[in-house]
Amino acid sequence: MSDTTTLYQHGTLALLVPGLLDGTLTMQELLAHGDTGIGTGEGLDGELIILNGTPYQIDSQGHVNLVSADFTLPFANSHFADYGALMTVENATRADLQQQIMAETHSANTFFSLKITGTFTQMRTRAVQKSGRPYQSLAKTAEKQSVFSRDTVTGTLLSYYSPQLFDGAAVGGFHSHFLSQDHDFGGHILDFATVDGEVSWQQFDSLEQHLPTQNQAYMTHDFAQDDILGAIHQAEN
Amino acid sequence: MSDTTTLYQHGTLALLVPGLLDGTLTMQELLAHGDTGIGTGEGLDGELIILNGTPYQIDSQGHVNLVSADFTLPFANSHFADYGALMTVENATRADLQQQIMAETHSANTFFSLKITGTFTQMRTRAVQKSGRPYQSLAKTAEKQSVFSRDTVTGTLLSYYSPQLFDGAAVGGFHSHFLSQDHDFGGHILDFATVDGEVSWQQFDSLEQHLPTQNQAYMTHDFAQDDILGAIHQAEN
Repeated sequence: MSDTTTLYQHGTLALLVPGLLDGTLTMQELLAHGDTGIGTGEGLDGELIILNGTPYQIDSQGHVNLVSADFTLPFANSHFADYGALMTVENATRADLQQQIMAETHSANTFFSLKITGTFTQMRTRAVQKSGRPYQSLAKTAEKQSVFSRDTVTGTLLSYYSPQLFDGAAVGGFHSHFLSQDHDFGGHILDFATVDGEVSWQQFDSLEQHLPTQNQAYMTHDFAQDDILGAIHQAEN
Repeated sequence: MSDTTTLYQHGTLALLVPGLLDGTLTMQELLAHGDTGIGTGEGLDGELIILNGTPYQIDSQGHVNLVSADFTLPFANSHFADYGALMTVENATRADLQQQIMAETHSANTFFSLKITGTFTQMRTRAVQKSGRPYQSLAKTAEKQSVFSRDTVTGTLLSYYSPQLFDGAAVGGFHSHFLSQDHDFGGHILDFATVDGEVSWQQFDSLEQHLPTQNQAYMTHDFAQDDILGAIHQAEN
């Protein structure tokens, strides 16, 4: 039986900050730890979302592509889905939604995942454009991101919540990707106005934090000089 | 076969700060994740060290006790030992030793364990005295710690190194416990002058961070008011 109480994470958000963007895990390896997930490709190659075992990439052109088993990633999360219904929302703003979720789940101090299927208004997403070596910092690379928007879009929001204590390793708070029902729109969620839909959630009691110890660039990097939290909050929100 | 590349951690150092000291894992459960480890008991009941599958407690009287399977812990680390020889040291100061280890292992950005068997001079350890409910803060509880010292002592130092990024979840840098060969001295290492001995190490590529999600005091605590890093560095160094 699959472990449904562990969130797997490969890499850290911190390693993206100085541009340690080598792909250090294959999609096949990531899928061994879950059938659901989010991530990015080598060189920040788009935004990934895994739903029901199928990995999709939203690239910087806004195209939604199927991802091959040998596609490599510097940073990703995955887990085996076992969601339970949390609530039905109507015309909920993003801020209201987050507040209700925190109040209902009482899970600010542990990791959990949200899956929301429904119709969103004023959805804005981004997808980063792949860089080549030598990689630049996250701030520089993120300048080349594309932003997409839809007035109304139906689809699936997949989010991971991490306690503030783990900010820097993960994103403290919510980290959300989106894929439309028609598979023609998605990415890393920057914002949306309201949502009507079904909210389900899955709580974890463990984070399996895997580090790219075979990657020399990662192992020899001096993180002391990086403004990790400043750069992450600039790029991820 | 046991997983020898994963460090298991139950609880976080951060939860000790406001005094979330309930025992939320049994020693039996901890030993399922390793034959080697460190930790503390419910209410900060002494300093624990697990060597070759046997868990010892150094209590605030300085006694070394065997730990029962149903003993509970708020915070602990364990792993399955697969150490490799790193170096032999003679008359090495603690600072020199740490510098040499970082230079030899190139592992500042991942988790690893050290095991040093040898003879230490001016060894100073501490063991915290168990508190009862309602628990006070780590700073208050740590006021009741005992400090022990030996001019010369032969034994085993067991240490976990965590990258600075994980400071607060774990102790950034080294977290070291000690047990003398004669099982009559030990505790959390505050300091030592020099060591002659054999240094072995074991690198991990994963941290399995387990959180006490069944503990209501933990799940409902608001960590936003706690000076986690300040309090930890006061208490753990």
